Amino acid sequence: MLEARLQQASILKKLLDAIKELVTDANFECDEEGIKLQAMDNSHVALVAVELQADGFTEFRCDRPMPLGVNLASLTKVMKCARDDDEVQLKASDNADSLHLLFENTTTDRTGEYDMKLMDIDQDHLGIPDTSYDATVSLPSGEFSNICRNLATLGESVKVEAGKDGVRFSADGEAANGSVLLKSSGRAAVAKADGGSSKAKKENGVKKVKKEKNDDEEEDEDVKEEDEDDDEVQEVKEEKDDDDEDEDDDDEEDGKKRKKKQKSGPVKKQRKEESDDKVYITLNQHVALTFSLKYLVNFAKSSSLSPRVTLSMSSDVPLLVEYKFEQGSVRYYLAPKIGDE
Amino acid sequence: MLEARLQQASILKKLLDAIKELVTDANFECDEEGIKLQAMDNSHVALVAVELQADGFTEFRCDRPMPLGVNLASLTKVMKCARDDDEVQLKASDNADSLHLLFENTTTDRTGEYDMKLMDIDQDHLGIPDTSYDATVSLPSGEFSNICRNLATLGESVKVEAGKDGVRFSADGEAANGSVLLKSSGRAAVAKADGGSSKAKKENGVKKVKKEKNDDEEEDEDVKEEDEDDDEVQEVKEEKDDDDEDEDDDDEEDGKKRKKKQKSGPVKKQRKEESDDKVYITLNQHVALTFSLKYLVNFAKSSSLSPRVTLSMSSDVPLLVEYKFEQGSVRYYLAPKIGDE
Amino acid sequence: MLEARLQQASILKKLLDAIKELVTDANFECDEEGIKLQAMDNSHVALVAVELQADGFTEFRCDRPMPLGVNLASLTKVMKCARDDDEVQLKASDNADSLHLLFENTTTDRTGEYDMKLMDIDQDHLGIPDTSYDATVSLPSGEFSNICRNLATLGESVKVEAGKDGVRFSADGEAANGSVLLKSSGRAAVAKADGGSSKAKKENGVKKVKKEKNDDEEEDEDVKEEDEDDDEVQEVKEEKDDDDEDEDDDDEEDGKKRKKKQKSGPVKKQRKEESDDKVYITLNQHVALTFSLKYLVNFAKSSSLSPRVTLSMSSDVPLLVEYKFEQGSVRYYLAPKIGDE
Repeated sequence: MLEARLQQASILKKLLDAIKELVTDANFECDEEGIKLQAMDNSHVALVAVELQADGFTEFRCDRPMPLGVNLASLTKVMKCARDDDEVQLKASDNADSLHLLFENTTTDRTGEYDMKLMDIDQDHLGIPDTSYDATVSLPSGEFSNICRNLATLGESVKVEAGKDGVRFSADGEAANGSVLLKSSGRAAVAKADGGSSKAKKENGVKKVKKEKNDDEEEDEDVKEEDEDDDEVQEVKEEKDDDDEDEDDDDEEDGKKRKKKQKSGPVKKQRKEESDDKVYITLNQHVALTFSLKYLVNFAKSSSLSPRVTLSMSSDVPLLVEYKFEQGSVRYYLAPKIGDE
Repeated sequence: MLEARLQQASILKKLLDAIKELVTDANFECDEEGIKLQAMDNSHVALVAVELQADGFTEFRCDRPMPLGVNLASLTKVMKCARDDDEVQLKASDNADSLHLLFENTTTDRTGEYDMKLMDIDQDHLGIPDTSYDATVSLPSGEFSNICRNLATLGESVKVEAGKDGVRFSADGEAANGSVLLKSSGRAAVAKADGGSSKAKKENGVKKVKKEKNDDEEEDEDVKEEDEDDDEVQEVKEEKDDDDEDEDDDDEEDGKKRKKKQKSGPVKKQRKEESDDKVYITLNQHVALTFSLKYLVNFAKSSSLSPRVTLSMSSDVPLLVEYKFEQGSVRYYLAPKIGDE
Repeated sequence: MLEARLQQASILKKLLDAIKELVTDANFECDEEGIKLQAMDNSHVALVAVELQADGFTEFRCDRPMPLGVNLASLTKVMKCARDDDEVQLKASDNADSLHLLFENTTTDRTGEYDMKLMDIDQDHLGIPDTSYDATVSLPSGEFSNICRNLATLGESVKVEAGKDGVRFSADGEAANGSVLLKSSGRAAVAKADGGSSKAKKENGVKKVKKEKNDDEEEDEDVKEEDEDDDEVQEVKEEKDDDDEDEDDDDEEDGKKRKKKQKSGPVKKQRKEESDDKVYITLNQHVALTFSLKYLVNFAKSSSLSPRVTLSMSSDVPLLVEYKFEQGSVRYYLAPKIGDE
C-alpha cells in the first residue's frame, strides 16, 4: 500500500500544470524511493520524467512497488479542489482501483476527501541512458520561459547555441528574425557541478530514501553545513561559501540543503534575486541545436516549480530540460530537429 | 413616486451580478418599507428574493406601492457606467415608463444621468410560507462558493448533509467522487438565533422602516448598545458580548447595528477573519438533501455581498440560501432533487 | 541612416497598442526632428498622427529623411519580445529593407536582436491644416476612456457638448439613454494655453531638435525654471507657479520640463492626483458635435501613454484627440457625424 503526505497541495498542482498538456494518462510508479512518472508526450516526440522523492514528503510509506494508472485530467480536477496550502494525503491499497486523496486545512477545519478512479496503463518504461553532455546551461526559469514564448511568436523553431561566453536563442520568421543572447556569468565551477548533477543523483538515489528524517529539526541548520558525499558537489560548496548560503543551491546540489530555512529574510531575498539573474555554462564543446518551440514553451510551464532551469545538450542527442525543486524534479527530453545545425 | 439614494453604487452592481444570470426581467416592488424583487429563475426551478430596506438608503421616499418592471441586462449596462464609490439616486414618478438614475462622484465633479426604459411585467407574487427549518448552517460565503465550484467540476449534484458535528458536501462524478466536511465550531446559541432570524425579520419588518434616521449620527455608537426588540436575538447578544462587537453580527441581527463603524481597525479585522472561518449549525434533526450544483454555483455569486451565507434545510422543502448585508438580503430557494436522500 | 535609442521599450509598446487596431501598415517617417507616423485608419474614417521627437531619445541620429514602411502587427510581435524596461536601439541603413532592433537589459545581461522586414508603402502625406478650435477640453485620460467605454455599451454615437461650465457626453440607446457631465474647474488660462499648443509646437519644432542635451544634468532643475520661448505658454507657467511644479505640466508645455524629476515623492504624488481629476475648458463658442463611439474607444487606448487627454472641437471640423507624453504625442482626428448637432 501507499501512504504519502505532502505539506502543500501547491506542489502537486504545479506539477500537473507542467505535464498535463503533454501527457493524457500515465503510471505514477510508487516504491520506497518515492513516486516517479515517465511518459512520452501524446505525439511521441518528447519524454517527460517526474520524480518526487520519498523524503520530500512529510510522511511516506510504500511497502512494495506499485503503479498507479492516472488520467491526468481527472487528477487535475481533483487537485483543483485543494487549496494551495492544504495538506495532501495520498492513499492506495495494493491493487486498488482508486486513489484516495485527503485535503486538510487545519486553519479552517475543512477536510476534503476524494476517490479517483485508477486505470490499467500498459506502459513500457524507457531506460534513459546516462549521458555526459557537451554543454550545460543553468539559467533563470522565467527568463527561459519568456524567451521561448517570445520567439514562438516569430517562428516555429529555435536554434540554441551554447558557447563559452553565453547562450544564444535564435528564431527566423516571416515577420522578423530574432535572437536573444544571455551572457554567461563565467563561474565555471558552479556550472560544472550542475552538469554533473544528473549522474550524481543516480548514485545517491537509494541513500536519499534511507536518510534519517532528523534533519527536520531545524535548530542547528543555520550553522552547520551538511557533509557532502560527492566531491564534485563539494567543489561547488567551497565556491559558494563566498556567497553565504544561497537558496538556489538547491538546483545544483540535489535539494539536499532544502531544510535550510531563510534565516535573514531581506538579505536572503536580495541574494536570491541576484543569483536568479545569473547564467552558468559548462562547456566541453560548442553546441548548436535546433528545437521545436511548441515543446519548449510547454516545458517552460514548470517555471512555477523552480526559479532555475538547466538545459543539457550534445549533438545528435535529445536536449534535457530539467527543473529541480525541494521535493524532486521534472525532466523533459526533446530530440533536436535534423539538418538545422 | 420613488426617490431613493444609495451611498455606494457597488451594492447595486453586486446585487445585479448575483441575480442577472438567473432572472431576465423582474419587477422591483417599491413601497415605504423599501425595494423588493421576487422572481422565478428563467427555467422556473429556483426562486430569487431580494430585499433592500428603506433604512439601508441614505434617503428613501416612496409614497405608494409601485412596481418597476426592469430588464436586468439593461440595468446592468447602466450600473456598469457607475463607479463603485459613486452615490446613486433612483427616481421614478408614478406610472413612469422610465427609471432615472443619477450617479454622483463629488471627488471628481462627475455626474452621470441615465434614463432606463421600464416594462410592464405580469408577475405573480409568490407567497413564501414561513418555514421552521430542521437544520441551519451558517458558513463563510467564500468557502461555500469554492466548495460548489469545485464539486461542480466533478459532478452535477451535491448532497448536503447537516449533522451536529458539521456539514458535508458530496458529489459523485465519472472522474472521481468527492466530499468536503466543514466541522461545526459548536457555538449553538449563535446558530440558534441564526436559524430563527428569518421569522424574526418578518415581525420587525414594518418597525424597521419607521425607525428614526438619527442613528446616522455616530457619536455614541461605540458605547451604547441598541435595545433589542426580540428576545431570541437578545440571547445572542449576550453571548457575543464576550467577543466585543463583532462586525459579523450583522448577519444574525438583521443589519440593525450596521451604523456601528470600525473603531479600532486592526483588532476588528483580526476578529472578523476569525469569525469568517467558523461554521455554526443549528439542528433539530439530521438532514441530507441533494441539489443541482449549477444553481448553487449561481447563487454563490452573492458572495461579494456578504462574508457569510446561511443554508436552511428541511426534508422535502426547498433549500434557503441567504446572504444578508447592511442594506438588505438576497435569498435563493431551490427544491431538492427527489430520490437522492 | 537612422540610429535611435529609447530608454524604455514600454513607450514603443504602448504606442503600438494605441494604434495597431486602427492601422495595418504605415511609414515611420524619420528625419532630424524625430520619427513621425501619419495614417488613415483602415476604414478611412479617422486619421492617426504619431510624433516621437528627436530629443525624446537618449541618442538620435538621422542623416537624411527616410521612410520606414512597417507592418504594425510585425513590429508589435517584435516589441513583445522586449521587456518594459529594456533599452531599445533602432537602426536602419539608407534604403534598407529591414529594421534592426536591439533590446538591452543591463541588469540581466540579456541582449535581444531582431531584424524586421520593411515594406514599400505608397502613402500620401496629408497636410493637416492648422485649426484654431472653438472649444478645447483637457481632462484625465482615464476618465475619457471610462466614459467612452461606458456609453459604448448603451449606443453607437456620443454627443460631446462643451459649454463654459463643463463638458457633457450623451448617448442614446435601446436599453437606456445616458449622459455624463464633467464640470470645468474653471482655470481658463491653463485651458487656453492647452488649446494653443498644437500651433506652438510647429513653430518650435526645429528648435527642439537643436536643443543642447545638457538639460540631462539634473543638479539645478528643481530651482531654475527654464526660459520659455513662447508667450502663450509663459502665461500658463505663471499661473502654475501657485501650484509648485506640477508633473502634468508636461501636457501643456510640450514636454520640455520632462527632465524635472520628482523631488519629494509623497507631496508630488498628492498634487498629481489632484490635478488628474481636474477638467479645463477653453471656449470661444459653445460646441456640440456627435462622434462614433467605436473610434473614441479605440483612441482611448492611448491612456496608458499620458494621464491627460485634450479634445479640440469646432463645428464641421474633425475632432482632435491628443495625448502628449515625454517623448512626443499621439493625435487622432475624427470627423463628426452629420445631422446630429
